[in-house]
Amino acid sequence: MRAPEAVRWSEDRSAVDLLDQRLLPEREERLRLTSAEAVAVAIRDMAVRGAPAIGIAAAMGVAVEMAGSDAADRAAWLRRLDGVCDVLRGTRPTAVNLAWALARMRRRATAEPGGPEMLGEALRDEADAILEEDRAMCLRIGEHGAALLPDGAVRVLTHCNAGALATGGIGTALAPLYVAAERGRALHVYADETRPLLQGSRLTAWELKRAGVDVTVVADSVAATLLRDGRVDLVLVGADRIAANGDVANKIGTYGVAVLARHHGVPFYVAAPTSTLDVDTATGRDIPIEERDADEVRRGFGRLTAPVDVAVYSPAFDVTPAELVSAIITDRGVLRPPFTQAIHDLFAQREES
Amino acid sequence: MRAPEAVRWSEDRSAVDLLDQRLLPEREERLRLTSAEAVAVAIRDMAVRGAPAIGIAAAMGVAVEMAGSDAADRAAWLRRLDGVCDVLRGTRPTAVNLAWALARMRRRATAEPGGPEMLGEALRDEADAILEEDRAMCLRIGEHGAALLPDGAVRVLTHCNAGALATGGIGTALAPLYVAAERGRALHVYADETRPLLQGSRLTAWELKRAGVDVTVVADSVAATLLRDGRVDLVLVGADRIAANGDVANKIGTYGVAVLARHHGVPFYVAAPTSTLDVDTATGRDIPIEERDADEVRRGFGRLTAPVDVAVYSPAFDVTPAELVSAIITDRGVLRPPFTQAIHDLFAQREES
Repeated sequence: MRAPEAVRWSEDRSAVDLLDQRLLPEREERLRLTSAEAVAVAIRDMAVRGAPAIGIAAAMGVAVEMAGSDAADRAAWLRRLDGVCDVLRGTRPTAVNLAWALARMRRRATAEPGGPEMLGEALRDEADAILEEDRAMCLRIGEHGAALLPDGAVRVLTHCNAGALATGGIGTALAPLYVAAERGRALHVYADETRPLLQGSRLTAWELKRAGVDVTVVADSVAATLLRDGRVDLVLVGADRIAANGDVANKIGTYGVAVLARHHGVPFYVAAPTSTLDVDTATGRDIPIEERDADEVRRGFGRLTAPVDVAVYSPAFDVTPAELVSAIITDRGVLRPPFTQAIHDLFAQREES
Repeated sequence: MRAPEAVRWSEDRSAVDLLDQRLLPEREERLRLTSAEAVAVAIRDMAVRGAPAIGIAAAMGVAVEMAGSDAADRAAWLRRLDGVCDVLRGTRPTAVNLAWALARMRRRATAEPGGPEMLGEALRDEADAILEEDRAMCLRIGEHGAALLPDGAVRVLTHCNAGALATGGIGTALAPLYVAAERGRALHVYADETRPLLQGSRLTAWELKRAGVDVTVVADSVAATLLRDGRVDLVLVGADRIAANGDVANKIGTYGVAVLARHHGVPFYVAAPTSTLDVDTATGRDIPIEERDADEVRRGFGRLTAPVDVAVYSPAFDVTPAELVSAIITDRGVLRPPFTQAIHDLFAQREES
């Protein structure tokens, strides 16, 4: 795969090797982190971002830290493990994958008999499994999604970054594109810059360009013109959470792109792991939407771009109603409308198997 | 009026007094320009922007310069005038109002009998007339537009800056809001920040806030959510050019807002002087669209926000088809669909009168 690796083991597997995303797109530098504290700082300062990548980095950070633990016995070792997990969990309190990965590490340790040395190895195995499962999940999304692409050269519009930089593998929304590129398909990607934090121009454009995929950056307000001029064959975005009826919460701006895609008769696809499907949330109306700091809009680039005390409304996400979604591409296959049924069936199937 | 004055005479009428828009929203400073060269620099460096304001500033610059001319006779004086006009005309070659204002100044001078002193006074009168006509035009747009506002508190979404800062008066798209505010109407304005050059957050937000009108800045991608959540009663934008069929060329992003307004059943109004109506252009397809420099997107805030050599597509304008426009508010009344007929009638009426 030609996609960058956001998070991986160092060569000797004694450290967490992170791509420092704060420096993108200016410089490509990697961090070699040998303690949980260093990983916690990297997560807090957003050297690594994207829910799956954060979860993986935290799990690896626990493994690296505990491998060096000098705890005298099992009980002391487990106490130390709890302390380490607490520090990491506090870095990004709303990141679901972070809490999930840490709980999984803790569970593995308590289930494992034996003393500190065996426990340490078990943790390294578990972090490895979390990383590898994420890679495999990305690849399956990529394969299911690549099969959806029309014949010939394909022009895709995407919003924000749901790419390799957000996961342990080749991403979610960008995974079908990496798979298609690997198969020699001709692709052109338009990346919305994605204000306020510019994940599209800073990250999506960077990772696609680095991987040799043709990419053009546009201001968010250009998407409508691209669609009108027939320059986009399909829209492909990620998701932060998908309700039981198929409503999709994703980065602010996604909903507008979905309306525009519908207006111009262009398919609108969402790619996300099945873990993003939240069957306990009935509809998008039940998804809480975080509001971002006004200064990301007023002075997001180190200079004042709006009156210093002007009101700003800056929701982090919006909700795209299911009726605007053409299909949801998951690691377990492609879901089609009606989504309430498709999502229900997917979970029923899981429970049976 | 509580709107700022982008361009006016100095108190003793010996200089052009410009609000330096490059410093907004950080500082409010005015320039006192006593030569055509100084005005040319101010136009080129965008201390003043907006087609009407540029035309007015140039006309006033000519008057100020020629008032100090020591030309010996009428012929030498007129040669000097031509040189001055050439310098000013070269600053922003595509600005229609600039060439129009300079041609009008030249015409006035050649029509005026007498020597240098009388010619100088005639030019000052002409520049004054251009300024005052623009102020009156803005006010008429404001009055026609204010009559369209629904009863009660009104929530308006606007894009870019077609305000006082772009004209000699109270603006075009913002004029109805200034008139309504003056009449004590309760208003709330959402200003799209308007990437790449942020005229919405830098200029619209600044001038409305300064005038005491409630304003909230949003990233361009938030407009869809505002409309969906029922927080916008109407959209009000300016126009750079309107074709004979009512298609509207305006700042990039306008078309997307128009589609979103239609999707949510919200009226979409365009406010523009009749001079913006271009009956020689049949439809929006015939309007050439300027492309902006890629670095406005790649490093628009003084730092690299996209890979240094990534492709960027950055059209300056887009075209909103007439069928998405609810009404066009002009200084000569409100035009309603079908616009081909309404625009034709407006011009027929003018020729009769």
